[in-house]
Amino acid sequence: MRETSVQPTFHDAVIELVHGAGGKASRRLIEGLFLPLLANPALIPLEDSAIMSIEGLRLALTTDAFVVKPLRFPGGSIGELAVHGTVNDLAVSGARPLGLLAAFIVEAGLPSEVLRAEVEALAQAARRAGVSIVGGDTKVVEHGKADGLYIVTAGVGLVDPRAELGVHRVRPGDQILISGPIGDHGITVLLARGELDLEADLVSDTRALTPFVEALLEAASPGLHWMRDPTRGGVATALNELARDARVAITLAEEAIPVRDAVRGACELLGLDPLYIANEGQLLAVVDPAWVDAALAALQRVPGGEQAACIGEVQEQPAGVVIVSTPYGGQRVIDMLVGDPLPRIC
Amino acid sequence: MRETSVQPTFHDAVIELVHGAGGKASRRLIEGLFLPLLANPALIPLEDSAIMSIEGLRLALTTDAFVVKPLRFPGGSIGELAVHGTVNDLAVSGARPLGLLAAFIVEAGLPSEVLRAEVEALAQAARRAGVSIVGGDTKVVEHGKADGLYIVTAGVGLVDPRAELGVHRVRPGDQILISGPIGDHGITVLLARGELDLEADLVSDTRALTPFVEALLEAASPGLHWMRDPTRGGVATALNELARDARVAITLAEEAIPVRDAVRGACELLGLDPLYIANEGQLLAVVDPAWVDAALAALQRVPGGEQAACIGEVQEQPAGVVIVSTPYGGQRVIDMLVGDPLPRIC
Repeated sequence: MRETSVQPTFHDAVIELVHGAGGKASRRLIEGLFLPLLANPALIPLEDSAIMSIEGLRLALTTDAFVVKPLRFPGGSIGELAVHGTVNDLAVSGARPLGLLAAFIVEAGLPSEVLRAEVEALAQAARRAGVSIVGGDTKVVEHGKADGLYIVTAGVGLVDPRAELGVHRVRPGDQILISGPIGDHGITVLLARGELDLEADLVSDTRALTPFVEALLEAASPGLHWMRDPTRGGVATALNELARDARVAITLAEEAIPVRDAVRGACELLGLDPLYIANEGQLLAVVDPAWVDAALAALQRVPGGEQAACIGEVQEQPAGVVIVSTPYGGQRVIDMLVGDPLPRIC
Repeated sequence: MRETSVQPTFHDAVIELVHGAGGKASRRLIEGLFLPLLANPALIPLEDSAIMSIEGLRLALTTDAFVVKPLRFPGGSIGELAVHGTVNDLAVSGARPLGLLAAFIVEAGLPSEVLRAEVEALAQAARRAGVSIVGGDTKVVEHGKADGLYIVTAGVGLVDPRAELGVHRVRPGDQILISGPIGDHGITVLLARGELDLEADLVSDTRALTPFVEALLEAASPGLHWMRDPTRGGVATALNELARDARVAITLAEEAIPVRDAVRGACELLGLDPLYIANEGQLLAVVDPAWVDAALAALQRVPGGEQAACIGEVQEQPAGVVIVSTPYGGQRVIDMLVGDPLPRIC
C-alpha cells in the first residue's frame, strides 16, 4: 500500500530515546533502517502482527519488548503488560492466541522477589487471557547494564476465519470506534515515577482485548475492516499510520472521545494531549457504517466497554491527514507524535 | 519425565550472573521459580522448543535473548547469533523455520551504524538460513540502562514428519554424535573482550544447524532419538540434562571429542574445560546403534561437518550421571556447570 518511490532514509548518527517513542522518529528508524535491510513483504504493512499461511491455516506472529519504568504501577506491572501487549497485538489481527514465549533480561542484583512477583503477574495474566506460556529464556547481565528487568514476549495465534482485516479494507464513510477512555496507562505510569508533584485517582487500563475482539467478530465481522490497540504514541499515532497507509483522511469529533477527568487534568497541567498518550487496554476499530450500531452495542456489552464510543469517520480527502473538530466549530490537524514526552511507558 | 516429588526450590535472595550461565544455578532458577508459577506441561521437558499440535500440524516455538559482549567477535556478531540461536533451537526439535521475530532493546547513545550493522548481519543470516524476519519491535532505554544492544528472537517452525525426538526415545546402547570441534564460540568471545593477554587463531562457530539436521533426517530418521545444540554450559551441561531427564548414564571417550588446539590451549591456560564452553554451531545427536554409521557419514558430508564424531554412549547405570573416560584408563564425573566462568557469551 505504500509508495516505494518515497522511501524514507535514516541519517541520524546516534539512537536516542525518541527513536523508541512510537512516533515519527520511530517510523523513520523502522522504514529507513530496518525495512530496507530486512526487505520482507510481510513487514511492509507494519501491522501489529504478521500473518502467515501455513497449510491452509492463517497464523499470526508478533513480538514486543517491555522496558516500562517503574516495574509496578497502579493497576499493573511489567509482567502483566508483557502478556497483554502481545495478546492484544494478536487480538487486533483477529487472532486467538495459541501460545506465548517470554524472554527475561535480568540485571544482576535484582531481588529474587521482584522477579518472582513479575513471573507470577505474567502467569496470572496469561491464565486470565486463556493462553499458555509455552517457552522462555532468561539472561542475566551485570549490575548497571539493564534497569532491573526487561521482558520480551512473542505470540502465535490462529486468525479467526471471520476476520478480514487490513488497511486495504478501509474506505471513506467507515466509522471509527474506541472501546473506552484513553490515556489511562501513560498518565498512570508517568505519575507512578513520582518525579512530578501530581497525584491522581487513576490506574492503568492494562488488559487483554480478546473479549472486545470476540464481541466484534460475533456481532459485526462482515463490517469490521481494521483494528489496532493504540499503545505507544496513542490514538493520534495509530490513526495517522492508518490515514497514511490507507491514503484516507480521518476526522475525529473531540467531544466524542472518552477521556477521564484525571487524565484530562494531568494532561492540561503537563501540556500533553490525551490523543498521544499510550493505552494498554483500548481497541480502535474501523467499521462499515451499516454495521456500526451492532459493533458499538457489542463493545458496550463487554465489561469495561461501557464507555465505548464512535469518535470519528474515514473520509476521502485530505488523504493521509487526521483532523479533530472541536465542539466550538474549530479544526486542528493531529500529526504523528514528534518528540517523546513519555519514554519507557511500556 | 521428571519426578514431581523432588521439586527444587529457589531461595537465593538476589539474582546474580551465575543464574544466567545455563548451569546448575540457571536450572534451579527455572525449576524453582519459573516452572511452579507458569505450571505448564509444555515447559516441563525443558527442551529447546515447545511443540504444539494445531489442526494436525506440529508447530515448534522457541525464544532466546542475546546479550553477548562484545557485540562483534571473530566469525560473527550479535545479529547473526540471534538468528542462528533461534533457528538452531527449532532445528534440534526437527523443525524447519517458518518465520522469525526480532525485538531490539537499544541503549540511547548507540551509534546508528552499530545498529545498522547488526540489522544487516541479522538479515543476511536469516537469508542464508532460508527464513524470513516477519515481525519485530524496537525499544530504546536511557544511556546506562543497557549495554549497547540486546536482541531477542523468537521462531516458529514446522516439525518434520520424520522427526520423533525426545528424552523418552533415548535408551541404553544409543550412541552420542557431535557435528564438530567444541568450544570455539565461547573461547573466541572470551578472547575478543581483550581482558586477557591471550590471542588465538580462532573464530566463532556460529551458523545454522539446519543442514546437519536435514542430513540426519534424510539418512537416519528412524534411528534419530534426540538432538540438542550445546550452547550455554556446553556439551557437559546439555548431556547432564539429558542424563537426568532420561534417567540414563552417559559415558564419553575423551580422546574422541574433537577440540581444536587453540581451544585446548586457551582452556589449559585459563583452567577451563572445553566440555563446558559454549558452542553456537554444533549439534549433539543421540542415535540408535543400528543407524550410527549412516548418521555419522551424513554429518561428515555436510560442509563444516568433516570432523563429526561418535563421542560416547548411553548406558543404564549410574542414572543421571555423565562420565568421561580418559585415554589412560581413568574416569571422571562431569557434573553440570556450577560457577559462571564466561558470562554473556551469547
